[in-house]
Amino acid sequence: MTKVGIIGIGHGVFGRRSDATVQELAFEAFRSAMKDAGIGREDLDASVIGSVPEYHKQRSLAGVVQEYLGLTPLPTWLTEVACASGSAAMRTAWMGIKAGVHNVVAVIGCQKMTELATPEILALMGRVGEVQWESVFGTTFPAYYALFAQRHMHEFGTKREQLLEVAIKNHFYGAKNPCALFQKEITMEKALGSDDVALPLQVYDCCANADGAACVILAAEDRAKELSDKVVWLDGMACATASMSVLRRPNLVGLPSAEQAAAEAYEMAGISAADIKVAEVHDCFTIAEIMAYEDLGFCKRGEGGKFISERQSYIGGKVPVNVDGGLKSKGHPIGATGVSMTVEIAKQLRGEAGERQVKDAGVGLTHNVGGIGQYCFVQVLRRD
Amino acid sequence: MTKVGIIGIGHGVFGRRSDATVQELAFEAFRSAMKDAGIGREDLDASVIGSVPEYHKQRSLAGVVQEYLGLTPLPTWLTEVACASGSAAMRTAWMGIKAGVHNVVAVIGCQKMTELATPEILALMGRVGEVQWESVFGTTFPAYYALFAQRHMHEFGTKREQLLEVAIKNHFYGAKNPCALFQKEITMEKALGSDDVALPLQVYDCCANADGAACVILAAEDRAKELSDKVVWLDGMACATASMSVLRRPNLVGLPSAEQAAAEAYEMAGISAADIKVAEVHDCFTIAEIMAYEDLGFCKRGEGGKFISERQSYIGGKVPVNVDGGLKSKGHPIGATGVSMTVEIAKQLRGEAGERQVKDAGVGLTHNVGGIGQYCFVQVLRRD
Repeated sequence: MTKVGIIGIGHGVFGRRSDATVQELAFEAFRSAMKDAGIGREDLDASVIGSVPEYHKQRSLAGVVQEYLGLTPLPTWLTEVACASGSAAMRTAWMGIKAGVHNVVAVIGCQKMTELATPEILALMGRVGEVQWESVFGTTFPAYYALFAQRHMHEFGTKREQLLEVAIKNHFYGAKNPCALFQKEITMEKALGSDDVALPLQVYDCCANADGAACVILAAEDRAKELSDKVVWLDGMACATASMSVLRRPNLVGLPSAEQAAAEAYEMAGISAADIKVAEVHDCFTIAEIMAYEDLGFCKRGEGGKFISERQSYIGGKVPVNVDGGLKSKGHPIGATGVSMTVEIAKQLRGEAGERQVKDAGVGLTHNVGGIGQYCFVQVLRRD
Repeated sequence: MTKVGIIGIGHGVFGRRSDATVQELAFEAFRSAMKDAGIGREDLDASVIGSVPEYHKQRSLAGVVQEYLGLTPLPTWLTEVACASGSAAMRTAWMGIKAGVHNVVAVIGCQKMTELATPEILALMGRVGEVQWESVFGTTFPAYYALFAQRHMHEFGTKREQLLEVAIKNHFYGAKNPCALFQKEITMEKALGSDDVALPLQVYDCCANADGAACVILAAEDRAKELSDKVVWLDGMACATASMSVLRRPNLVGLPSAEQAAAEAYEMAGISAADIKVAEVHDCFTIAEIMAYEDLGFCKRGEGGKFISERQSYIGGKVPVNVDGGLKSKGHPIGATGVSMTVEIAKQLRGEAGERQVKDAGVGLTHNVGGIGQYCFVQVLRRD
């Protein structure tokens, strides 16, 4: 089977984008990725959209975006797996190329989160949890992650402040990312003084909804080598699932889907966690990043708090994590996030991350969670 | 690349299924397909869900269904391309198997259309058209298809009654299908007397929303041959798109996406339209089936009216079409329809369609349209 490589990357500005429709956001990222790849529309043979449809007024988004990008009559489809929709788009495009069905594919993650009013958004989000037995009792997203945090603190002595150290790091790097929603640093004092959301989580433990889009151009090995001299290869591409209800999970201190997807992605790429030099992980809440350190094997179970306190996830540490600001500071346009993570890792592996550049970043990883871990997609990327 | 074969099929009863949640509908079809394939869950390595998420109260349906079917922690994803969502699920599973990423995959199309109130459903459907310039002026689905019908009648002299002859045929066969929503025949007199919807279309020209699910088990060639002695092969699998706005279409008497997808599917399968012995086409409105005859090359452009009047799409005619009742009589659970079509063609090719059996049906076709032709998926199926 052919290898699949990234030959172009594009990323729009995340934020409240009342200046643009969702198809315009998609175009912004697409145009930049096509320019980066140095190719024209005639080089593409399909597009895939990662998005969660119900946040948009326009239905049937794949067709709308495809047409707006000028790609009609090429094949297109939309993938949805909650906040990992962008990664599912990546994975189906990767399969299409490995199958020899497609040769060069544009993968676009795009989402407007601000078309609907906040109560509507909260109602939609509440229903990503298990609606029959859990969300009726108020298990919103922050409430679920508060359970994880409480349990992690109880079992391992993880400290309240360690959660916020994640937020401080991500804002530190987000301040250097021109595409981030919040381009400013925060302090422990300010974070500890923010409003309660679901204890121990306060406002600064939570990522923010945002509008935005990101785009990656994928190509089959031969074509990738013809078109680009800075190909980043998708060496590992795994997806695993876990029960929607936390009542049926083995424990509340990690995501079984993440552990499994990581193991499979490492195996596929022929590497181990120790080989990862830079990572983008799904820090929808601060505790999520701490659990990710452990689920991905960057440290042992229970040592995630120590990992951040020792600044092991800063540049210069063991595995720099979310040095683009992460969901926390960059913002989380749910359909775009998986593709945005891929763009950042590709940029790092190409050595083009400027003042956020991780040295000798030859192998990188993305970890994109859907729901509260019902899905987890892990990719391993490698520069030649 | 490996061939991909269908080794199991399952189909639930379409209708107002207030007795079942969407995951229960999915299970009904899945259980029956697994029994038909004679395999267990341990033989599967992924599932794919075709569905349009916004009609359901439960969000993140792929994970919910996957878990309800007992398939956690296998990979899963959901595909959405409006009314062709089931076919997009088929296509991504087919790619995954051809890529060697998956070996045996359950493809489930499932949809509840009756969880929401009718005004909510109409609002959602209205937004599948182009929202910025068209649907604001009232171009609902029936209105779009009424434009197609008016133009077809004007250009080719297609008669009002010829449209209803399609409905009469589809009810004739639907009456023999225990899974159909309307299991009763209709007369021209009754149909002509039904309420106006968007002229010339009346109630009996329109398919009905329904709840329902269908499931197909796909396997790579080697595994398919091991597991089954009645494999139906996916020889052609094409997808094409067209502009969302009808203002940008070359004409209003056919769907360019359908013509292109058919041409590609025939080429991939190494056949021509003349080889198709049985077909399932997307008769969301009666005019849609007449345009499909032409788009698929069963007759010349403009001769679709004559094709039905001469009973060429009945069993015994040139190409029997929708002999399971079609969307018109079987009902149209939008995410399930593409998979339901596949189930029927597989059943026909296996010679298991009972009193609806088409003789010598060696090669069959499915034609599944999303939106008003923004997407069209065409599959060519063949029995060894």
